[in-house]
Amino acid sequence: MKVAIPKERRAGELRVAASPETVKKLKGLGLDVVVESGAGLGSSLPDAAFEAAGATIAADAASALAGADIVLKVQRPLLSGEGSDGVDELALLKKGALLFAILNPHNSRDHVKAYAAAGVNAFAMEFMPRITRAQVMDVLSSQANLAGYKAVVDAATEYGRAFPMMMTAAGTVPPARAFIMGVGVAGLQAIATAKRLGAIVSATDVRPAVKEQVQSLGGSFVAVENDEFKQAETAGGYAKEMSDDYKRQQAALVAEHIKKQDIVITTALIPGRKAPILVTAEHVASMKPGSVIIDLAVEQGGNVEGSKLGETVVTANGVKIVGHANYPSRIAESASLLYAKNLLALLTALNDKEKGITVNWDDEIVKAIALTRDGAVIHPAFAG
Amino acid sequence: MKVAIPKERRAGELRVAASPETVKKLKGLGLDVVVESGAGLGSSLPDAAFEAAGATIAADAASALAGADIVLKVQRPLLSGEGSDGVDELALLKKGALLFAILNPHNSRDHVKAYAAAGVNAFAMEFMPRITRAQVMDVLSSQANLAGYKAVVDAATEYGRAFPMMMTAAGTVPPARAFIMGVGVAGLQAIATAKRLGAIVSATDVRPAVKEQVQSLGGSFVAVENDEFKQAETAGGYAKEMSDDYKRQQAALVAEHIKKQDIVITTALIPGRKAPILVTAEHVASMKPGSVIIDLAVEQGGNVEGSKLGETVVTANGVKIVGHANYPSRIAESASLLYAKNLLALLTALNDKEKGITVNWDDEIVKAIALTRDGAVIHPAFAG
Repeated sequence: MKVAIPKERRAGELRVAASPETVKKLKGLGLDVVVESGAGLGSSLPDAAFEAAGATIAADAASALAGADIVLKVQRPLLSGEGSDGVDELALLKKGALLFAILNPHNSRDHVKAYAAAGVNAFAMEFMPRITRAQVMDVLSSQANLAGYKAVVDAATEYGRAFPMMMTAAGTVPPARAFIMGVGVAGLQAIATAKRLGAIVSATDVRPAVKEQVQSLGGSFVAVENDEFKQAETAGGYAKEMSDDYKRQQAALVAEHIKKQDIVITTALIPGRKAPILVTAEHVASMKPGSVIIDLAVEQGGNVEGSKLGETVVTANGVKIVGHANYPSRIAESASLLYAKNLLALLTALNDKEKGITVNWDDEIVKAIALTRDGAVIHPAFAG
Repeated sequence: MKVAIPKERRAGELRVAASPETVKKLKGLGLDVVVESGAGLGSSLPDAAFEAAGATIAADAASALAGADIVLKVQRPLLSGEGSDGVDELALLKKGALLFAILNPHNSRDHVKAYAAAGVNAFAMEFMPRITRAQVMDVLSSQANLAGYKAVVDAATEYGRAFPMMMTAAGTVPPARAFIMGVGVAGLQAIATAKRLGAIVSATDVRPAVKEQVQSLGGSFVAVENDEFKQAETAGGYAKEMSDDYKRQQAALVAEHIKKQDIVITTALIPGRKAPILVTAEHVASMKPGSVIIDLAVEQGGNVEGSKLGETVVTANGVKIVGHANYPSRIAESASLLYAKNLLALLTALNDKEKGITVNWDDEIVKAIALTRDGAVIHPAFAG
């Protein structure tokens, strides 16, 4: 069976869906691996490294994809008319090919139909179910982790002061105050990284149960800790929604807290929906000149009023609101290595010693991620 | 007496020579403080903050500088024909004014003559002697410390991988290897910051005595530790020069070491002279794609073969060589706050309870930093 890894062609995408390490292991599964020339360049992975691992290097997308049974990509393929170099990637896939990528189907329903029309069996890696067996294939986690790290590095770049306290002969530089809003995978790594760099770190989340995780990383948890909170705290991860009265008190507390922060990093995403506003224009206006806000949700509409995709906005009161697109691509090499491992884990699970890569359409993982099968859209969220 | 703090006009300079805190204390010395409007903007210090501290805000450089007895600046004043907005800053200074700034006289001898011709008494803050009493006025140290921190932040930005080891469900991301060449103030802070961020840190310096400092920050010291080294190590900071044989062995060791590094930060400066080459083109060619080199000496000719002032060069083998100009200005707010404190300390030392700011021309500090006096160039390195 032939596995193809074409170069990513969407603007700003520096990742690649394989690494020399995963190529070696795919070869070990008995697969022929073809990598398009230059596919790894954005991630500092030269052709020679893929070749040394056992891949064949193809000169262009057409020869890489020709006859491929399995196609590994980061982002969904370009259709005719998309992209600047005129390549219609989907047209290069053979009928019956298995396509694995972050397909972003909620925002590209036409693409889903096109996969079906082309007879391509497409699997959306971001739909990986949150079950133990699939953790090692969980691309959202692996990429969010790196995004959380890089968000703090970016904040340190934009910030005109040092993060750590510095004792110098001329006087002491006080540490920065960093506030992380949303304590998922990205938020936890942001807390850990800001703490490493020496900031005074605090965090908040709608789930009281994450308080302990925040504290274990050296952060303080910002919450109105009344009886309602304490009950919710012990009730576990996805507790019932808090009362309106609680929400009001919590909002007042957060508004007071944000005023004193130098760095705010927001990470709240709701799959398939617009991101919630966590930082209002009023919050921003209350902050000191030179403060930095990083909105990790800017591609889903943003957690911060006034953030703009792909831009750094400086407000009238001198606050920088940073809205970088595609955060994992900002740390492309690590992101590629982990993404490639996620894909490898899935292919390894799909591998049958005798029949090679085989899709069991009744498997829980396959059911969750399969969008199309043999010409039809089969995922319940997109079918019909 | 009137103290003026004009806006810095040289390209890329975001610092300012006063802060609200130092303005308050200058006022406490009985001085009238005038700050040019917008002087602090690049350091997130708005006019209102200076005003609240007791400064008068002047609309432009001319009104800020008119009649000022003392002028505090970061960089040397623009002369006629320099700069883009046509301001001849020196012409705005009154005869007899005291000018304190980083005057960079080795690279601007014409300026030194111009200060004398204008009857301005100019003091080069970077000539502050390394004596205990002057530590608090040591601008090279205060700025180098921040440069060392920011160099690591910039390296983390340019690097496509994470610095810390990360244990994820998909696998482990190994920590970055960072090598700091030159262990002065900037080097020590770079070691500390890279260590904070989770890198495996090593360092080297021509002074064996700094080994202990490197180790106390959690770094390893890269040196050929033979008998000659051990003797030099105990002999103290500025030991005799090492033998040619030792230098050869050390160079071979460094060449082997650099091959395995992900991050190299070079910090070796020799006052008034071209910086030494520490990283050769051969070293660079031996490094892995995606590695990052930050040359903190690029303005003095560079420690790295192939580094370019103000540019990020990507070599044929995919190594990034970063040559940012004016490193302290990249962390302008902290740099301004500490620089302002350095100046305040000097003015406080020059203050006489009855006569106000008074220059004692026989004082050790004044002798070291004074370039001109009453129309003559008096500093031994520039007179005659």
